[in-house]
Amino acid sequence: VAVEGGASAHVTSRAAAGSYETLLVSREENITTITLNRPAKKNAITKQMYNEIIAALEEAAKDDSAITVFTGAGDFYCSGNDLTNFSKIPEDGIKAMAERGGELLRKYVKAYIDFPKPLVAVVNGPAVGISVTVLGLFDLVYATDRATFHTPFTQLGQSAEGCSSYTFPKIMGNAKASEMLLFNKKLTAAEASRLGLVTEVFSDSSFQSEVWSRLKSYAKLPPKGLLFSKLLIRSTEKERLHAVNDAEVERLVERWTSDDCVNAIMSFFQNKAKL
Amino acid sequence: VAVEGGASAHVTSRAAAGSYETLLVSREENITTITLNRPAKKNAITKQMYNEIIAALEEAAKDDSAITVFTGAGDFYCSGNDLTNFSKIPEDGIKAMAERGGELLRKYVKAYIDFPKPLVAVVNGPAVGISVTVLGLFDLVYATDRATFHTPFTQLGQSAEGCSSYTFPKIMGNAKASEMLLFNKKLTAAEASRLGLVTEVFSDSSFQSEVWSRLKSYAKLPPKGLLFSKLLIRSTEKERLHAVNDAEVERLVERWTSDDCVNAIMSFFQNKAKL
Amino acid sequence: VAVEGGASAHVTSRAAAGSYETLLVSREENITTITLNRPAKKNAITKQMYNEIIAALEEAAKDDSAITVFTGAGDFYCSGNDLTNFSKIPEDGIKAMAERGGELLRKYVKAYIDFPKPLVAVVNGPAVGISVTVLGLFDLVYATDRATFHTPFTQLGQSAEGCSSYTFPKIMGNAKASEMLLFNKKLTAAEASRLGLVTEVFSDSSFQSEVWSRLKSYAKLPPKGLLFSKLLIRSTEKERLHAVNDAEVERLVERWTSDDCVNAIMSFFQNKAKL
Repeated sequence: VAVEGGASAHVTSRAAAGSYETLLVSREENITTITLNRPAKKNAITKQMYNEIIAALEEAAKDDSAITVFTGAGDFYCSGNDLTNFSKIPEDGIKAMAERGGELLRKYVKAYIDFPKPLVAVVNGPAVGISVTVLGLFDLVYATDRATFHTPFTQLGQSAEGCSSYTFPKIMGNAKASEMLLFNKKLTAAEASRLGLVTEVFSDSSFQSEVWSRLKSYAKLPPKGLLFSKLLIRSTEKERLHAVNDAEVERLVERWTSDDCVNAIMSFFQNKAKL
Repeated sequence: VAVEGGASAHVTSRAAAGSYETLLVSREENITTITLNRPAKKNAITKQMYNEIIAALEEAAKDDSAITVFTGAGDFYCSGNDLTNFSKIPEDGIKAMAERGGELLRKYVKAYIDFPKPLVAVVNGPAVGISVTVLGLFDLVYATDRATFHTPFTQLGQSAEGCSSYTFPKIMGNAKASEMLLFNKKLTAAEASRLGLVTEVFSDSSFQSEVWSRLKSYAKLPPKGLLFSKLLIRSTEKERLHAVNDAEVERLVERWTSDDCVNAIMSFFQNKAKL
Repeated sequence: VAVEGGASAHVTSRAAAGSYETLLVSREENITTITLNRPAKKNAITKQMYNEIIAALEEAAKDDSAITVFTGAGDFYCSGNDLTNFSKIPEDGIKAMAERGGELLRKYVKAYIDFPKPLVAVVNGPAVGISVTVLGLFDLVYATDRATFHTPFTQLGQSAEGCSSYTFPKIMGNAKASEMLLFNKKLTAAEASRLGLVTEVFSDSSFQSEVWSRLKSYAKLPPKGLLFSKLLIRSTEKERLHAVNDAEVERLVERWTSDDCVNAIMSFFQNKAKL
């Protein structure tokens, strides 16, 4: 997962062919399920994985399924951006690396904004960073009671992404959203549900069976009614979401080249090396 | 209630004259109360009733009352659009019928968007469909604990109206709103209150007395302060609401002529005929 | 605090120099704290105090602190606009007084909209009127369980300010917001927290120690991450907030010269004189 000069923000042809190294993708009973599949790394998202998710969303948009589900393999949902994305500085320097990273992030979030079908998160465990912020772009979010929701941007000298600077205040109001987005508060599943970020919380023991039986019944609804209702809901704010995504990415590219952020990430790796 | 070629989306002169067949309208203690009055049909809204409600709102806007209240006669608040509106195909065909239905719906929702005084729903029992979606355009929603809130569009191949594709996500966030608008979830009164769709829930035994004593005291407030405060609140999103109404109606007119929807409504009547 | 013809909406040079008569301002551990300091008057805001708060916010924006805190001296947080601001009619008449008052209010609310750093309310007791409405412009709102939240505009023939006609419906939905903004409902701290106006409520006995230990840890975060995250959040609606502020002020200037309002304020003083 080292960053290379020739790494591209474009979707690889391997991914476009439907053969993924970091994801499992299945299609049954009108449901396409995209499973983040790096359980040994708590499903942290590498550059390859960003590209594969973009490709999997493009495929799911075109296939015959009625709804699309995201989940994680193992005990974690997703631990966010894999910081090894920042660990090897390429020959053309930090600034060029930050700009390529920004372009990849912009395309990644755009894939969620533009996704045409109902999109469901089955949050099977702790969720961190960008896996939390994009939840504001999902249509349903079901969580096990083991899940937590954490967006520790500012302690790494970074700033909000995934349209969360717009969606979180919209969902829960500034007074609740700021404690997450500015001050790194970690929410329990119950708190996230009360605040509207999560649709419903289930006991971990029955989580999978309850959620999947519900989703299977939802997937039998007339698909065009689903498509057009989602389109109506999204169209009231799609233009706004793209503008927010652009502004967030522009700020992050600046942050990634700042001393604040470089120092915070270097400490992270130094502390890790000491363990 | 059969659909006729000559049926008009315009308010009938009978209604304009204040004499309604499907509503009871009373004025006392600064409160105008509009009661849906087809209890034998669970107050399902026919074409005539849409027109009469538009006319009653126009009258209430101009009368001396300080606030306007909606409620239902009998045990139901309202069971939504009367599907017999679709049961007789006129000579000029389904498409012409759908377009007239769309124009009537557009005017109906517009009447709520433009209503200048505080508008209160006294939800005396179950509420379905358009009687739920327009609640996002009310200023207060009081509900008995017997009330439920159900918007089963997609199972009939239809899509959201009443500006709910905008107001519901605004009120409760996408993760909660989608379960209602896309997946037909029925809310209890307590759930609807927690999500912000309902102002407050009352025990059915004391519902009428508690609500009306509160409303009578509210109706004594200086009326211009009420008018101008409501105007300020509404003006922050009025233009947006009209645009959303237009987009929702355009989609519904397409839906009403689709195979999905025609088949779903035909099954509804066939199942009913078998009972 | 009498209103004088020569009173100016501009910040006084005394205030700009950091020496305040109605506020205490302290700076320690990266936190600037602005304490409303008229406890004998429940921290009611006089014209002088509006000007001093504007000046204190301008100073806090430029100083080295990471976050800025508002609180009140004594048992009250703030009892809102000091009605003695209206008690002496100047030589140039009510209309001119209302226009100057409107201009001062516009600048006051603008100072909150434009404030660049995380802004925290430590609500140490009951809050009334404009001290409540501007809470929608804060990033965090911590409240003692003794706090209440009351915006009794319409009973004084007035209308909403502080951008509350936009922020309150955004935070809690119309059905909840209208009961506060139109019908003068007073919220408990727990209710305000459930509705999203308040971040968290604390037992009065441990309020100060819990809140300040949390704020001190927040103030150690990398300051640029905080600044830029707040900037992203605010920039999604800054233009809208200024437009809402202008519309609310324009309406209030009209209200202040209306019979409704003049009579309501005269009764207030007559009732007070009788006590």
